[in-house]
Amino acid sequence: MNRLQMNFDGREYDICITQGFDALRSEIAKLKPSKIMVVTDSNVSELYLKKVYTALEGICCALASVEFVAGEARKNLATVQRLYAACLQNGLDRKSVIIALGGGVVGDMAGFVAASYMRGIRYVQVPTTLLAQTDSSVGGKVGVDFDGYKNCVGFFKQPNLVYANAETLMTLPKREFAAGMGEVIKYGIIRDIDFLKYIYNNAQAILSLSIPHISHVLEVCCRIKAEIVLEDETEKGNRALLNFGHTIGHAVESAMDFTLLHGECVALGMIAALEIAKLRGNVTEEEMGVVIQLLEKFSLPTTVSGLGEDIVLSYLSKDKKMENGVLKFILPEKMGMANIYTDVTRDELCAGIQRILL
Amino acid sequence: MNRLQMNFDGREYDICITQGFDALRSEIAKLKPSKIMVVTDSNVSELYLKKVYTALEGICCALASVEFVAGEARKNLATVQRLYAACLQNGLDRKSVIIALGGGVVGDMAGFVAASYMRGIRYVQVPTTLLAQTDSSVGGKVGVDFDGYKNCVGFFKQPNLVYANAETLMTLPKREFAAGMGEVIKYGIIRDIDFLKYIYNNAQAILSLSIPHISHVLEVCCRIKAEIVLEDETEKGNRALLNFGHTIGHAVESAMDFTLLHGECVALGMIAALEIAKLRGNVTEEEMGVVIQLLEKFSLPTTVSGLGEDIVLSYLSKDKKMENGVLKFILPEKMGMANIYTDVTRDELCAGIQRILL
Repeated sequence: MNRLQMNFDGREYDICITQGFDALRSEIAKLKPSKIMVVTDSNVSELYLKKVYTALEGICCALASVEFVAGEARKNLATVQRLYAACLQNGLDRKSVIIALGGGVVGDMAGFVAASYMRGIRYVQVPTTLLAQTDSSVGGKVGVDFDGYKNCVGFFKQPNLVYANAETLMTLPKREFAAGMGEVIKYGIIRDIDFLKYIYNNAQAILSLSIPHISHVLEVCCRIKAEIVLEDETEKGNRALLNFGHTIGHAVESAMDFTLLHGECVALGMIAALEIAKLRGNVTEEEMGVVIQLLEKFSLPTTVSGLGEDIVLSYLSKDKKMENGVLKFILPEKMGMANIYTDVTRDELCAGIQRILL
Repeated sequence: MNRLQMNFDGREYDICITQGFDALRSEIAKLKPSKIMVVTDSNVSELYLKKVYTALEGICCALASVEFVAGEARKNLATVQRLYAACLQNGLDRKSVIIALGGGVVGDMAGFVAASYMRGIRYVQVPTTLLAQTDSSVGGKVGVDFDGYKNCVGFFKQPNLVYANAETLMTLPKREFAAGMGEVIKYGIIRDIDFLKYIYNNAQAILSLSIPHISHVLEVCCRIKAEIVLEDETEKGNRALLNFGHTIGHAVESAMDFTLLHGECVALGMIAALEIAKLRGNVTEEEMGVVIQLLEKFSLPTTVSGLGEDIVLSYLSKDKKMENGVLKFILPEKMGMANIYTDVTRDELCAGIQRILL
């Protein structure tokens, strides 16, 4: 097992990267939960709920679970209310622990509920998708969509444990695995050129889910994300670097009415941002070409059809990253090192968007 | 103006106790808000919204307001969703400020929204009731009711300013003023015997809203609450002292289906708790008599009719202060000094409840 230790203002927790669910029991036991409620979705429940139950049997006086229909469409306050009701039905108290078993949506929902039920109880992330294992389960951002706006409401709520079982990726649909690679490649571009090369050179092994390669990917991603988040938990400064590819990416995601996966939109958003960086002379067309090749190796989209520039721009204007009318935009200064820019013009945004529109 | 300075882990803010809204402008200006949205209710809107608008005119590029129908019945997630929609309609961003203008329900709702909209924006408490000025606006607990459970979901979210205008108490219904005195008297019992004597000796001046007396009351209450909260922001320890009178009080409040005011139920809960303390020899029947006299001076109830012991007990069993089946109960060790007890028996609870049942 690989273990990363996190420490936010004295609140400590571990990120465990491992195979199987056997070690989950001893990790959860450290938290001495009064009761446990597993939150999961209809897909993951079928695959892993029984295994998690087996691992945790008898660990505390009450072990319950609640599931909702899989998909971003359920990431809303109606589902949150169903989960609150389940907390009450199962008699969760302040010493209880919620386990988020699933992908990013499950983590967001369970985290939102844990952040607010009785003004906050503990929760554990057990991510089962590549995206959740490398990104959303680390860092403590939880949120739900409201009125068409992604993650419009939410909190910063650190989990008390992240337990990533790499074997769960075996059952992940190929398209979702690829979408997760969008965020993985992001880490390389913003922070670690050597990691970018590693992914490029080991794409086949990663695609075939070689455990040593996957474990390395998870570890590097969690380490980079943890470093950036530790520098800036509540996103006043450098945490914004993690939004690379997300500004135009989110706008495309909304404009396409969520028919593309998040990681696919991040891939598109990164191409658009790289185009702007190229126009500024920060990166070359050749370097951009390597990223496009890399995205294509993982079957990620680099262009999108059926969208106009105007609709993407209209969603951009409503972005949370807008402050006093100024957009905080992330661009690489050079490959492997990103920075925050507040002077990106409308013309540049248009050029970036044009690069990805078919 | 009296000013108390608060500091929670480096997050600083002031509590201003003053007359009128004139000074609100300069206090809010320090926060440099990009936009302001005032959240208020139908009662307070009519009385004070125009005055607040006049005080803040031109302070930033956008000043908006949203109101909901007054009353605890609206302290729910449906109202929260209406307020989120108003945030979006008014284009609030991360540098915006929400002002809670009203009593405890308004403060809870506005605080809940500020804690979660875009993962948290700033908010200012402008309490207009005695209860809000002495209790709910200080300390950062915000919450909404769910499925019949009071404050079942919520957060610890410190405001960025508390601005208490003592003159607003002139328009407060007598019954609500009295209910606020329930919490005021609580501070004396748990922490400050001299303050209890002050209230007893100056009851008439306080009732007639003499500004020097009211200002003193607000200041002492805010100071005591601030001291206790600073010791223990997230209620792991001594903050629980503030729950004196609230355990049985909340149960009575639920059992009476919220037909009694919160402060009235706290008065009843304090009598019940004092009865238990008396049985343990912590306080005398004479000391208890003085508290009953004091509550009666402010027209607060000391008995309740139409309730059975069983229903009160059934609500007690669902209390948030229950951990691993153990109830954390607050009792005075002696008058003016309370402590946390985890060994209160069912028989003692019954004796306490019997004392207040008619």
